Amino acid sequence: MEEFEVLDRLEEIKGLIDIKLEKVIDEQSVIYGDVARIAGEVVLAGGKRLRPILIMLAYDLAGGENENEIIPLALSSEFIHSATLVHDDINDEASTRRGHQTIHSKFGLAKGIIAGDYLFSQGFGLGGRYDQEVVEVIAHYCSKLASSEFTQIDHILDLSTSPEDYLEIVRGKTAGPFAAGCKGAAMVAGASQKLCDSLFDFGMELGIAFQLVDDLLDIRGDDRMGKPRGADLYEGKMTLPIIHALTILHGKQRERLSEILHEFEDSLFDELISLLEFALSLRYSEILIANHLERALSKLEDFDDSEAKQLLKHVVHVVKTRNS
Amino acid sequence: MEEFEVLDRLEEIKGLIDIKLEKVIDEQSVIYGDVARIAGEVVLAGGKRLRPILIMLAYDLAGGENENEIIPLALSSEFIHSATLVHDDINDEASTRRGHQTIHSKFGLAKGIIAGDYLFSQGFGLGGRYDQEVVEVIAHYCSKLASSEFTQIDHILDLSTSPEDYLEIVRGKTAGPFAAGCKGAAMVAGASQKLCDSLFDFGMELGIAFQLVDDLLDIRGDDRMGKPRGADLYEGKMTLPIIHALTILHGKQRERLSEILHEFEDSLFDELISLLEFALSLRYSEILIANHLERALSKLEDFDDSEAKQLLKHVVHVVKTRNS
Repeated sequence: MEEFEVLDRLEEIKGLIDIKLEKVIDEQSVIYGDVARIAGEVVLAGGKRLRPILIMLAYDLAGGENENEIIPLALSSEFIHSATLVHDDINDEASTRRGHQTIHSKFGLAKGIIAGDYLFSQGFGLGGRYDQEVVEVIAHYCSKLASSEFTQIDHILDLSTSPEDYLEIVRGKTAGPFAAGCKGAAMVAGASQKLCDSLFDFGMELGIAFQLVDDLLDIRGDDRMGKPRGADLYEGKMTLPIIHALTILHGKQRERLSEILHEFEDSLFDELISLLEFALSLRYSEILIANHLERALSKLEDFDDSEAKQLLKHVVHVVKTRNS
Repeated sequence: MEEFEVLDRLEEIKGLIDIKLEKVIDEQSVIYGDVARIAGEVVLAGGKRLRPILIMLAYDLAGGENENEIIPLALSSEFIHSATLVHDDINDEASTRRGHQTIHSKFGLAKGIIAGDYLFSQGFGLGGRYDQEVVEVIAHYCSKLASSEFTQIDHILDLSTSPEDYLEIVRGKTAGPFAAGCKGAAMVAGASQKLCDSLFDFGMELGIAFQLVDDLLDIRGDDRMGKPRGADLYEGKMTLPIIHALTILHGKQRERLSEILHEFEDSLFDELISLLEFALSLRYSEILIANHLERALSKLEDFDDSEAKQLLKHVVHVVKTRNS
């Protein structure tokens, strides 16, 4: 396939998912009213649909042949992801997401919490139709997600957080759900244990890289390009570049970095980035990103060449170069 | 069976559920750490285990013969119920439950929300192992629960709330999950559509009565006996006795009732109860409770006599006479 064909095909899959999401949310709104409509708006407000796209492609790569069989799992992943966004926005006190007011800031805390719960129940309803083994993989990584978020809170402004602590959190909160989705899709396709595990590893490696990129964007993202930067810094979240710099720097530089982290504001961005560059911490993150993406690609080599494989390779490329 | 045998057998079932819950939570705590332990404490802090007991008995009544087949669904109902309690406590700003500090008041809002999400994911994981039809019934009534909580918030201090509005909320937030649990259990037992529907109706009627009793306890409950009273009144929740009195009373009495509801405090309890008694509103609730319990009992007549039937009749009796 030529590159333009790859892009077209990925757009086509994303378009299919968008249409299915709209249809489900329209139907739900008739049954469940306001909560379905308000929560549905969060789902439909945009997003890359990376999780459902990965599930569709993983199913295809693993030999699945009936698109309708995998769509509920793909949609389920987007509902569960949206549920975590609605609840995260409460915990991060975010007033907007993707240009829209967040539910809790528009309708109050109670409705924000309930809307997230609603999205979870829809996500689990869609995902619960698969075999027990598949459901257990998904449910396990949802529980790990919660467990990792707990740990992340415990590490807020904890300057002794180690790179291992950080990677454990990332595996739980971001990469685990990617891995579980890819593995679940392979299980639904009836792939061998070995290929299910390969897709699990692929999702895990890609997910770690995805989060590392996210963390870099928070530090040097360009407001005009996509994500506003600095949210993690204001919340005191320990991300890899910060953890790395705290390890490398010493004396006055480390003291200054600590001060900046404790009372972060936009005017300190340049100074922070200078310190991170001095410690080669941004470079370090970039190298790790490249390594994890390389490992993700290598997992795809367990599969014969196919359109799905080519598309997944392109998704790996997109994760590397994304700016929002 | 003699009454003491009925009580012994119900205690035995509750004991079995308690043991299984403890075991699952112990296992989870090893895997998921703090979030499992802290959320698990809420589950283990007590409670009547009414939902899992109903599921066990409904399965038995519907002809199910393998206890191990139904236990995950029973446990699932208690995890999902506990999840809603953790999130409700946030929305109601409750600082204690069953004598323990609530999670959000002890560990902060973020951990409260995440702990509830964790309990949902465990509940859905346990419930997700059943056939698609069973999962859809459970997930549907979880979504209805969220939908009804939204509606309930919209009716806070809305003095024009009608009895129909109220019953619609109760069907969604309390009775629907009872009904879905009973029906799901009958489906797992392989019962006919007709018997599944009978158990659904049984759960719905019992659940409505359960909530009506709850609302009465909030007004005249005795602190020494169990539930502290007045929580609904402080939150401005419209319950049936209040809605009934607002319909019956007029002129100065209705004005005074409205004033009391808008600025409720403990010193106004006696005056409130006088007004409700004048309007015969507590009596009205009691009659409705009796009617719904009668209808619940009549649904059991679709089944042959059995131990399970006798035990369910006793549960109906317990719902009527409970004081906590």
